Order: sequence, then C-alpha cells, then structure tokens
Amino acid sequence: MKRTERIIALTEILLSRPNELLPLGFFADRFDTAKSTISEDLVTIKESLRLTGKGQLETVPGAAGGVKFFPVIPKEEAQSFLQKLAINLSAAERMLPGGFLYMADLLYDPSVVRPLGLIFASIFRAKNPEAVVTVETKGIPLALMTADSLGIPAVVVRHGNKVTEGSSVSINYVSGSSKRIQTMTLARRALGTGKRVLIIDDFIKAGGTAKGIMSLMQEFNAEVVGLGILMEDAIWNTSRLVDDYLALLQFAEADPSTGKTIVKANIL
Amino acid sequence: MKRTERIIALTEILLSRPNELLPLGFFADRFDTAKSTISEDLVTIKESLRLTGKGQLETVPGAAGGVKFFPVIPKEEAQSFLQKLAINLSAAERMLPGGFLYMADLLYDPSVVRPLGLIFASIFRAKNPEAVVTVETKGIPLALMTADSLGIPAVVVRHGNKVTEGSSVSINYVSGSSKRIQTMTLARRALGTGKRVLIIDDFIKAGGTAKGIMSLMQEFNAEVVGLGILMEDAIWNTSRLVDDYLALLQFAEADPSTGKTIVKANIL
Repeated sequence: MKRTERIIALTEILLSRPNELLPLGFFADRFDTAKSTISEDLVTIKESLRLTGKGQLETVPGAAGGVKFFPVIPKEEAQSFLQKLAINLSAAERMLPGGFLYMADLLYDPSVVRPLGLIFASIFRAKNPEAVVTVETKGIPLALMTADSLGIPAVVVRHGNKVTEGSSVSINYVSGSSKRIQTMTLARRALGTGKRVLIIDDFIKAGGTAKGIMSLMQEFNAEVVGLGILMEDAIWNTSRLVDDYLALLQFAEADPSTGKTIVKANIL
Repeated sequence: MKRTERIIALTEILLSRPNELLPLGFFADRFDTAKSTISEDLVTIKESLRLTGKGQLETVPGAAGGVKFFPVIPKEEAQSFLQKLAINLSAAERMLPGGFLYMADLLYDPSVVRPLGLIFASIFRAKNPEAVVTVETKGIPLALMTADSLGIPAVVVRHGNKVTEGSSVSINYVSGSSKRIQTMTLARRALGTGKRVLIIDDFIKAGGTAKGIMSLMQEFNAEVVGLGILMEDAIWNTSRLVDDYLALLQFAEADPSTGKTIVKANIL
C-alpha cells in the first residue's frame, strides 16, 4: 500500500469508530508498518481536519495511549443545514388535521438525522455525556445518531413494561399539553447508576415528556448534563415544565385553515 | 491544502454521504482545484478501497455524472464481528424470566448496530432497495443503520394510529407465537407506492410480525426485495409463517433453570 492509500484507509477506520481509543500498534499491525510512520500519517490527518473543521483527533501518549477521533460539523454548515430543513418543514402539505406537523419522513431519513445527530454531538460533547437517553418512538433515530457521533450508547425509555427487558423502573407523568397521565419505563440493566446522560427528543410542547424522563433519570441517580430537542413548539404560549433545553428549530406558526406553516431555524 | 490533506477531506465527504451522486464540480469548487485533479484523487481513493475492501466508488460519466460511494464490510470482518456478538449474547446474565434474551443494550449501541447495518447493507445492496422498513421499537436502530449504509430512507411501522402522522393504512395480524391479534399502521405519506423495500427486524420466532409487515407492504404495492433479521429463534421448532429470510444469528439453546444460553453466528 502506498502512503496516500494507507492514509485513506486510516481515515476510514478513525471515522467509523468515533470516541474509541485506538492504539498506534493496532494501525502498525494492520498496515505492517512502524508506529512512527503511523504517527506521521496521523499528523497529516489532523492537519486536514483542522483545515476543514470536520473533526478532532486527540492523541493520548504513553503505553496505554493511542488516538481518538471525534466528528464535528462546522457551525456555518450546521446553520445552513438547519435553514434548509426549516424551509422543507414549512411546506403547506406537511400540515395535518389538528395543526400537527408531519415530520416522520425526515426523522427516519439517515441523510437528515445523521447531520442532526452530529449537530447535537458537537454542541453537547463538552459536557462529557456517557449515554444518550430518549423515549420511543420518533426520537430514537435522532438519539442514535447523536450517540453514534459521540461514540456512546443510546438508551430508549419505553411506554409500558416489556417482558423482553427484565426488571424495570416505571414512573407516571402528566403530559403537559393533554394533561393525560402516562407511564414510562426503563429496564434496570439499560442504564448503570450515576451516569452522565444527555436527553434527546424530537419535539417539545409543554415539556411533560422531558420532565418525565428527568424524573426517571433520578431513579437511576443519573446526572442530566443536557437536553437537546429538534423542534420547540413556539405557538404554545403557556409556561413549560422544563426550560433549560436547547432546540434546533422552532414551530413558529400554523394556520390549519390555510395550511400555512412556518418553521424557523434557531441560531446556534 | 496539500494533496494528501485534500484526499483525506474528500474521503470524509464520500464516507458521510453514501449512495449520493456527487458531481466532480462540487469537489472542484470546494477545494478550488481542477476537475482533472479531483479525478486523480478519486483514483487513489478507489485503489485504497479496493485494497481494504471497505467500499466501492462508482463513477458515473457525462455532464450529469459524478461519483457515488457505497460502504462495504469485508466478509471475514463481518463473520468475526458476528462471532464476537454471539459470544457476548450467550452470557448467562442475559437470560430473563420466561427464557427471553436481554439484548436491548446492544440493539441501541451504535458501535454494535452500525456494523450490523453495514452487514445487512452489504448483503442486500444488489437487490436495489429504495427504503428499509421495520416495525417499532427495537428494530429501529438496525433499520436506520442499514438505511444509512445504503443511502436510502427508513420507514417505521407503528402499533396503533398516531395523530401526528396523518391518514394511514392499518392491518390486523396474528402474532405467530402468542396467537394474539395485533394492529400495525403505516402513514400513507411514509412510503410512496410501488417501491422496492427491504424489511429489517431484530428477532423472528413464528414470523407473525414479518408476515404482517409483508401484508402491509401489499397495501402500498411495494415489492419486498429482502427480509433481514438479526436473530432467529432456533428453539422454535414449529414451522414459521415466513421462510425466505436471512438471519445473522440464531438463538440455539436456552435453559431457564441453569441460565445457560447459546447464541450462534450464522455463516454468511
């Protein structure tokens, strides 16, 4: 393998294993070359990443050391992505009866949720979360892609108890907008105790669900280090049950009679 | 930017946008260089990918042409990954009351489902699916990662009707093992008509759920081009409602009294 070919292969490995500490010996063995050569290759990759702003390469020295990659999305790229997404979401045909906004197609499209996960990861990485928590169903892809970019596991809270998940903790919570009492459940073994968690969800209206997850996290002695929401309902003009969250978009206007919908991108 | 730095940046873009046709002009603009230079860079990337077996670069000639990247996992790497996963899943502490196997932690861990999605994508790419379909909840991460590697959207079938998804098609199906009648629903706008779909799910026992999704797909005139399952229940010795599927793992033995569990990797 020529040097540039090896560097491409090295780049592929780093990109596909974010947040994993990879010893230089691992690369030296795989590419049958000296560690010092790998070190030089990494300097080149680091410089390229510095120039494009697409990620960081962290070198850990010593015998137990190695290299760790974190993907990053440059701020302007993130902002322009959100802007385009907001325009797409403002299309009249997305309005559903009852003033709801259809967004499931985008929430399950990897080409949309992958950059969104990367945006959340870039924002919350500094808080050092150990797990990304969400509640089924529509928040799962966002949470998974955020967890993927952070290189940590996702944890999915369920509605109701599941025989396939073993003993679990359930809490009741009041949905802030419909005032209905609901139950959410998390398997005991899904999350250790005392973890730093980042909560990710697709939508916030009154904040009942977010507050529910936060109460559930207390049962696991978890520390909530961040709350990232794709879209906040800015039409909802009553106070929310949680206010310390970061939303990427806002649902600013909806007129069911004309189908006119306005979604805005928040400034990062 | 030096040549190697540019090639690293190019590699990053290709890897993060699988299956997307990127015109050479896009790269030429971004890196402020000639299209012929980009062409040469792509030849180097192609050669590196050929040597590592980590993906394919397809060049589409002509004015509307460009380059498309598909990630691939080499067969031996896939097999050894499944082998390790099978050992992990065979741990006694994974046995739950009722003989169920706890696997939710792995199903939501990107470092596990990302390679699994890549394995499914590598197997089913030749069938040219246009969407990956699954049913909530535990199959979602697998389906999403498969869709991500294929560069196509995922579609999530729900249990029960949701106001936030608009008009929908529901079908009743009989769970093959519990014989209970259940409902699954898909929003009309979630999937166009006449699409080629790949169905992905985490587990198959009697096959009732898989058969349900297939019936639902008929309502959308979709052609099911493949059925990929993470784990088949090989303890279930009654005939299944579907038999044309590909499973990566098999649940081969479970003794609730001793906690002894055997999960095996199928041969790819």
